[in-house]
Amino acid sequence: MKDLHELLEITQQYQQQLPAMEAPSKMPIKGEIAAWIDHTVLKAEATENQVRTLCEEAKSNHFAAVCINPAYVPLSAILLNGSEVDICTVIGFPLGANPTEIKVAETEYCVKNGATEVDLVINIGAMRSGNYQLVYDEIKAVRKAAGSALVKVIFENCYLGDKEKILACLMCKEAGVEFVKTSTGFGTSGATLEDVRLMRSVVGPKMGVKAAGGIRTYADALKMIEAGADRIGTSASVAIMAEANQ
Amino acid sequence: MKDLHELLEITQQYQQQLPAMEAPSKMPIKGEIAAWIDHTVLKAEATENQVRTLCEEAKSNHFAAVCINPAYVPLSAILLNGSEVDICTVIGFPLGANPTEIKVAETEYCVKNGATEVDLVINIGAMRSGNYQLVYDEIKAVRKAAGSALVKVIFENCYLGDKEKILACLMCKEAGVEFVKTSTGFGTSGATLEDVRLMRSVVGPKMGVKAAGGIRTYADALKMIEAGADRIGTSASVAIMAEANQ
Repeated sequence: MKDLHELLEITQQYQQQLPAMEAPSKMPIKGEIAAWIDHTVLKAEATENQVRTLCEEAKSNHFAAVCINPAYVPLSAILLNGSEVDICTVIGFPLGANPTEIKVAETEYCVKNGATEVDLVINIGAMRSGNYQLVYDEIKAVRKAAGSALVKVIFENCYLGDKEKILACLMCKEAGVEFVKTSTGFGTSGATLEDVRLMRSVVGPKMGVKAAGGIRTYADALKMIEAGADRIGTSASVAIMAEANQ
Repeated sequence: MKDLHELLEITQQYQQQLPAMEAPSKMPIKGEIAAWIDHTVLKAEATENQVRTLCEEAKSNHFAAVCINPAYVPLSAILLNGSEVDICTVIGFPLGANPTEIKVAETEYCVKNGATEVDLVINIGAMRSGNYQLVYDEIKAVRKAAGSALVKVIFENCYLGDKEKILACLMCKEAGVEFVKTSTGFGTSGATLEDVRLMRSVVGPKMGVKAAGGIRTYADALKMIEAGADRIGTSASVAIMAEANQ
């Protein structure tokens, strides 16, 4: 595994010239976008009934996953038992500002209780303070704690410069996480096409890129996929499906 | 300790007639409001340098505490070593949507690393789903885990009705926590005078009431104190002191 020093050198090269973007995945055939979507409810005020509805909608629409807060993982695991819908949850969400050992404990709790995907928010403050080693070590620790669950790492790009975005992509690639993800949906802005292109260029065609935050329409989703995303996090999934099936 | 059934009966009585409000604490003498203030930086993007500045300002202004995210507890403990400024942090923040065992682990981590006050966000979704026992048990568990540290319980009132606000006050009083707190500052609205009055009426004169979220001026702070608050959470503390000293 490359150390931080090596990743910083590659970051510097990529700041001058991003690698050519290789197409990550096929575009969805009309009406088949469901498999690209994490059907999401992460609001503080979400009730059990809202989570029940979310899980029903995910099953009937064949979404890739539901994305819910950690406290709703056990309920979702019961509701989705026997279905093909994955259970995605979030770690250190949405601020990313708690210590690694708590993020690791939260990951272990979620995986033990049925989560099959965990979306980790990096320590944004540490990244902006140049404390890159902490960010790198934390990604590795959560990747390890997640066991057989898939890990997506949320950068919260609205608070980062290009150097930090590139470096975070390289850390994720090196740490063996499966996805990079643009945003929490709670920051000052959500996914942008520019960020999705940058992330896809750096991680290459084999890793996942999840675009999330502010994606409200079928057209939004298609643009993100065209730019390199192969997973879309949105709470407007049912409306998007209605548009896609028109 | 009263059980949930008893608390729900009292809640019903209080919904019809709140107890008379007893004055909690003296109003600050002009220029002496610093002792009422938790000097706060909880943004995801806050850097180490911002936390250093926060701690310096807290010392020179004699604020009650700094309020920072868990990842910055160890740094703040070093910076404030030997000072009279308390170290306040936040648990399950800001969504409150992770499981009790993670909130307990986060509390233990923070107290072990120097936090003297912990502000816990209740499980808002559980409260809104009528799963009151979970909320009550969680408050008790975190109160126990915090040991000698002071516990403030954040309701996030903007998502609750009066019944839930009253019940949460009764739970906190019964569980022996030191403070109730209006808001995270990340919800759809912050502290209101009406909520502060309600909370003070229910918890009585001996517990603390912390008003937080949207308090930007000296006049705002005084109004909150007049309504029954005895702690103010704000990131505008230095500006408020400048106004107070005019």
